Amino acid sequence: MHHSFFQASTSGRKAPWLLLLLCVGLLWQTAAAQEIKSPNANLTLTFALQADGVPTYRLTYKGREVIKPSKLGLELKNAPALTSGFAVAGTKQATFNETWQPVWGEVKTIRNHYNELAVTLTQAATQRTLLVRFRVFDDGLGLRYEFPRQPKLDYFTIKEERTQFALAGDHKAFWLPGDYDTQEYSTVTSNLSEIRGKMKAATTPNASQTPFSATGVQTPLMLKSKDGLYINIHEAALIDYSAMHLELDDQSFVLTSHLTPDAVGDKGLIQTPANSPWRTVIVSDKAGDILESKLVLNLNEPTKFKDVSWIKPVKYVGVWWEMITGKSTWSYTNQENIKLDSIDYSKVKPNGTHGANNAHVKEYIDFAAKHGFDAVLVEGWNTGWEDWFGKHKDYVFDFVTPYPDFDVVELNRYAASKNVRIIMHHETSGSVRNYERHLDSAFQFMNKYGYNAVKTGYVGDIVPLGHHHYDQWVNNHYQYVLEKAAEHKIMVNGHEAVRPTGLARTFPNLIGNEAARGTEYEAFGGNNADHTTILPFTRLIGGPMDYTPGIFQTKVSAYNPQNTSFVHSTLARQLALYVTMYSPLQMAADLPETYNQHLDAFQFIKDVAVDWDDTKVLEAEPGDYITYARKAKGKTSWFVGSTCDEQGRTSKINLSFLDPSKKYVATVYADAKNAHYEKNPQAYAIRKMNVTSKSKLSQYCAPGGGYAISIMEAGAAR
Amino acid sequence: MHHSFFQASTSGRKAPWLLLLLCVGLLWQTAAAQEIKSPNANLTLTFALQADGVPTYRLTYKGREVIKPSKLGLELKNAPALTSGFAVAGTKQATFNETWQPVWGEVKTIRNHYNELAVTLTQAATQRTLLVRFRVFDDGLGLRYEFPRQPKLDYFTIKEERTQFALAGDHKAFWLPGDYDTQEYSTVTSNLSEIRGKMKAATTPNASQTPFSATGVQTPLMLKSKDGLYINIHEAALIDYSAMHLELDDQSFVLTSHLTPDAVGDKGLIQTPANSPWRTVIVSDKAGDILESKLVLNLNEPTKFKDVSWIKPVKYVGVWWEMITGKSTWSYTNQENIKLDSIDYSKVKPNGTHGANNAHVKEYIDFAAKHGFDAVLVEGWNTGWEDWFGKHKDYVFDFVTPYPDFDVVELNRYAASKNVRIIMHHETSGSVRNYERHLDSAFQFMNKYGYNAVKTGYVGDIVPLGHHHYDQWVNNHYQYVLEKAAEHKIMVNGHEAVRPTGLARTFPNLIGNEAARGTEYEAFGGNNADHTTILPFTRLIGGPMDYTPGIFQTKVSAYNPQNTSFVHSTLARQLALYVTMYSPLQMAADLPETYNQHLDAFQFIKDVAVDWDDTKVLEAEPGDYITYARKAKGKTSWFVGSTCDEQGRTSKINLSFLDPSKKYVATVYADAKNAHYEKNPQAYAIRKMNVTSKSKLSQYCAPGGGYAISIMEAGAAR
Repeated sequence: MHHSFFQASTSGRKAPWLLLLLCVGLLWQTAAAQEIKSPNANLTLTFALQADGVPTYRLTYKGREVIKPSKLGLELKNAPALTSGFAVAGTKQATFNETWQPVWGEVKTIRNHYNELAVTLTQAATQRTLLVRFRVFDDGLGLRYEFPRQPKLDYFTIKEERTQFALAGDHKAFWLPGDYDTQEYSTVTSNLSEIRGKMKAATTPNASQTPFSATGVQTPLMLKSKDGLYINIHEAALIDYSAMHLELDDQSFVLTSHLTPDAVGDKGLIQTPANSPWRTVIVSDKAGDILESKLVLNLNEPTKFKDVSWIKPVKYVGVWWEMITGKSTWSYTNQENIKLDSIDYSKVKPNGTHGANNAHVKEYIDFAAKHGFDAVLVEGWNTGWEDWFGKHKDYVFDFVTPYPDFDVVELNRYAASKNVRIIMHHETSGSVRNYERHLDSAFQFMNKYGYNAVKTGYVGDIVPLGHHHYDQWVNNHYQYVLEKAAEHKIMVNGHEAVRPTGLARTFPNLIGNEAARGTEYEAFGGNNADHTTILPFTRLIGGPMDYTPGIFQTKVSAYNPQNTSFVHSTLARQLALYVTMYSPLQMAADLPETYNQHLDAFQFIKDVAVDWDDTKVLEAEPGDYITYARKAKGKTSWFVGSTCDEQGRTSKINLSFLDPSKKYVATVYADAKNAHYEKNPQAYAIRKMNVTSKSKLSQYCAPGGGYAISIMEAGAAR
Repeated sequence: MHHSFFQASTSGRKAPWLLLLLCVGLLWQTAAAQEIKSPNANLTLTFALQADGVPTYRLTYKGREVIKPSKLGLELKNAPALTSGFAVAGTKQATFNETWQPVWGEVKTIRNHYNELAVTLTQAATQRTLLVRFRVFDDGLGLRYEFPRQPKLDYFTIKEERTQFALAGDHKAFWLPGDYDTQEYSTVTSNLSEIRGKMKAATTPNASQTPFSATGVQTPLMLKSKDGLYINIHEAALIDYSAMHLELDDQSFVLTSHLTPDAVGDKGLIQTPANSPWRTVIVSDKAGDILESKLVLNLNEPTKFKDVSWIKPVKYVGVWWEMITGKSTWSYTNQENIKLDSIDYSKVKPNGTHGANNAHVKEYIDFAAKHGFDAVLVEGWNTGWEDWFGKHKDYVFDFVTPYPDFDVVELNRYAASKNVRIIMHHETSGSVRNYERHLDSAFQFMNKYGYNAVKTGYVGDIVPLGHHHYDQWVNNHYQYVLEKAAEHKIMVNGHEAVRPTGLARTFPNLIGNEAARGTEYEAFGGNNADHTTILPFTRLIGGPMDYTPGIFQTKVSAYNPQNTSFVHSTLARQLALYVTMYSPLQMAADLPETYNQHLDAFQFIKDVAVDWDDTKVLEAEPGDYITYARKAKGKTSWFVGSTCDEQGRTSKINLSFLDPSKKYVATVYADAKNAHYEKNPQAYAIRKMNVTSKSKLSQYCAPGGGYAISIMEAGAAR
């Protein structure tokens, strides 16, 4: 289906009513059309008003329809909708072109280049003004609503945002069930028309979950059209607004925004002037372009932090996987039903399985120091874990009281003496008021004892009940924590929080998020073997993920005989993830005792960088494979990582990204020929070879496997 | 109707099943009855199990039925109810008799004397235990639920508490519409059977209101039986629980507890061990006994504060009534829709009506110092008042930023130099998270600049929406503020917060609450002329009220020609309220310019005490009149106050409370003969006379009037 568009001179104050156009199968009555193109002219954005004053937009890529004419607007609570009856009061076009340097990132320098169209709409009947701003980049589109300060629109409540993304067909989709409280679902790969039939099975149990529809899905949503267009829909700069889901009309393949409601069903309390987050459409005919897109970051504001010297990428180990597998416990006792204000832990019988004890933490510190890690995460250090979970308990943790066997002074002293930091852990159990009440003292405690990073957690339903992990009120909580942390020069890694939307550009102390099924699920039944071939196309579009790779002992039963789960990955692929799952915060998640048995493979984790000057996608197809090459920050070395699905494949790459004037030594950590993520995951082979920019490589990846390569300049120190 | 009760020996571990008894008109099948009496034996409490294991209680006073057999229990969410199927596992009786001294109060020493019955109930089918504790005082009954720590009842959610108060007839009731968010209704006086018909008219508009039923009423509920029993139903020690309302069955006259729900309709999240608040029934055949009851205080825990030297009763004036009447404004500008983080008040045009400006506040400080007041309340001192109200705004105030014309350093210096304190004002607009976020810095600010008391306000709906002013989560907020304030040695006067339940015994820094229609309503259309003859029987049963009396200029139009409201009281009665409306925090609410025109009457406000060694109710009938005599703390002087309804009357009292060995000079501030609250409110007469303990007084009270008397030892300084 193809549509014609009028281009009218509508930059004046009044929009002339043009003739009606009846398109085949779709009534798209353009009253005032405006068009802008991407800097490279591949993308064309057309804005038009329908005859009834409904604003619409359309996006094409090399003449192919990405977003068919789609409506814009919002419904308000107890007020007329901002969806129709508009006239164009004025339009404004602009071009922007700059480069900027992220505090940390996949590349040293990011280009922010777009053409912009701002359309001012007036609704005569209500004397209200709404502005829609479009930015068209070479890699996609951002659009947002702007609500200027005005007498007739000062405060309002959003009933629903009605932004459509009308797709051109029954695309293949990589989707998660839409949910107000969790993204920890396995990605389902299916055509859009199949979502309804697969929704129930896809909605697996979670500690807190609120699915909302048989065809509702989450963002970032990755799509592939039958004719090979790769399309990603997400949002950028989610601040003081509810997170957006997408509701699919599986007859027309129109996606419509669906915001997360608060406890009374409202979807946003807005005071003008205000902007919505950006709604983003990244598009290309090459899958790797989606991965290389910086559109979401570019649509966030530059940071206002004056000093960013305290923000540093972190490679860490931690007292964590042993609790996840069930080998040890977060809790100090087996007592249930405890009250923080009355329990005396010195009088309670210890369970003997508490992981975060002094001697054991020192072992981790020793291991971290020996192998050059920056930090040790310690979970379960503080009182309250006996009944932290699933009780809707308000005063669940105080964030400053260690268990009797965790000496906060001594352990931080010991760590510091070995040039290692302990990473703080603040599990909130979703009790956000309780966390806010203790936030100042908790951060002061961190400053006092030498912590500079915190992993936060929001397991379980939000307390107070009725709120959701992704509603405006709770999003504002995460934002509050982030800003308070910055005041204390603390880096934040937020788990179970809202999915990232590029906010780390503005708040670069947000060095990590979970917001998807991480490695922990390998101990809870396992992730799909193709999971890591999808996440970079979905979850990671918004920002880095603390995926916690590096599990060498793929049989969980080795740590806990009762746990029959296994890691759906070969060992070699676990190495690749340090490259394919971009994060400035990378964990070596397995236990020191296991790494000590595989020090040859472990060498890659020690070597791999966590901050980069450059990144190339060498191969990519969502759900099938991804191969990245990245150049270490400030160094000549490169690292390559490749992950494939359960089929296995042979990856063919060339090393033309290398400096032609240099010689390198490559160390390849690869699946052995008989490796298999389920049957033979630990079979790997390591080989070294001399390479240059002219080298080509054909490398086998086992089913559920992958490979990692470190490429060091010949003669250079590691 | 009369019932027989079995008294069985049920102090053992197992309750024998006794024969069934069919009472006339009521099936009250006692399985295990226990009885205790008040120390003076006037009251009898009987506990019994119905045949179906439903726990019940009954209360008589001098053989007359106060509470007919009434069911006890709670319904839980997603768990079997705690309402039936119980057996008595054991009972325990005890006697308690002590006296204690309040930090401030109506009397110097309070006697806490009761007989107690604790009944342990087991529900075999669920292996759960519930304890009901009864305390019978000479002035009434307290009962509460106790939830011991136990494997089968660790965490639970209350669906509804089902505590019945089965009344013996169609009593006269002094009631307010039941509401989750406000008590600021005019009291309706009617028979219970008339409540349904009067509910709609009684539910007058309020900034935040959530009525819940056509027969739901609030506590404290004052009742009078046809045969002259005075009964008051309320609760004591409301901590970590939802406030209780009463749902009336107007066929049977059974009241049943109705708790305030949270945003998802839950009525309480409980972790064992825990107790409910006490449910209280005060009873007497003499109205004055209700007023003199200390039962609610006695059912609260003694304070744990080690140092209470910083808690002092306060007599104050304030920049307040002028804003209430519309003569001046809280806001500094007339701009609307402001954002605290972007507005620059130095660049905004002032409105010229801002009350809390330096020069004007100094006038109040001067007036306070000249007349011996302790403090000056200043509202509208801080930024944000331009759109503080009704917007559901989250970040509405920061509590630390003064308007440009309020010099916090200079004004506190100036006040201190005159031995006066400024009282801080924290209006929250119901945005409780915002207040908690700023609480530490706000209290530090107060400590820094010399404030030692704060008036808090919760006007409008609670933010986040869905919560109510009286639900558990919000009650816990008030409690948090109170405890944080104590850490900073700050006294709290909470407006629009939950009604008090005697918590000031435990937290004596809670020196005031509003929680009813205060004097401000005299500028919003007026209070009923009998309002102050009722409040001591209702609202004040829970604790002191910051009623803010002392309005001499009863025509509001004198301050704001557009406001036609008038004070429904004579001037003389305004003086009486300092005695009849007990509070350790008393305001002289009118403007200095008005007091300067009536310095003779104003003398009473200057003289009257705010803390007392003794209190006597000389006459009382709810809705008609109240006359109190109170002896000033540590002094020989007494003060008498009398308030009557719109009928007027002649009060006859004798002064036998005076020390027979002393001679006194009484100054009587009374209505003139032609005084009338509407037609001639300012007509008063002052006379002096010598009195002794043998003196009798017959004193006319005009319609809506009253009188005040200061009685000073002859020859003693004032």
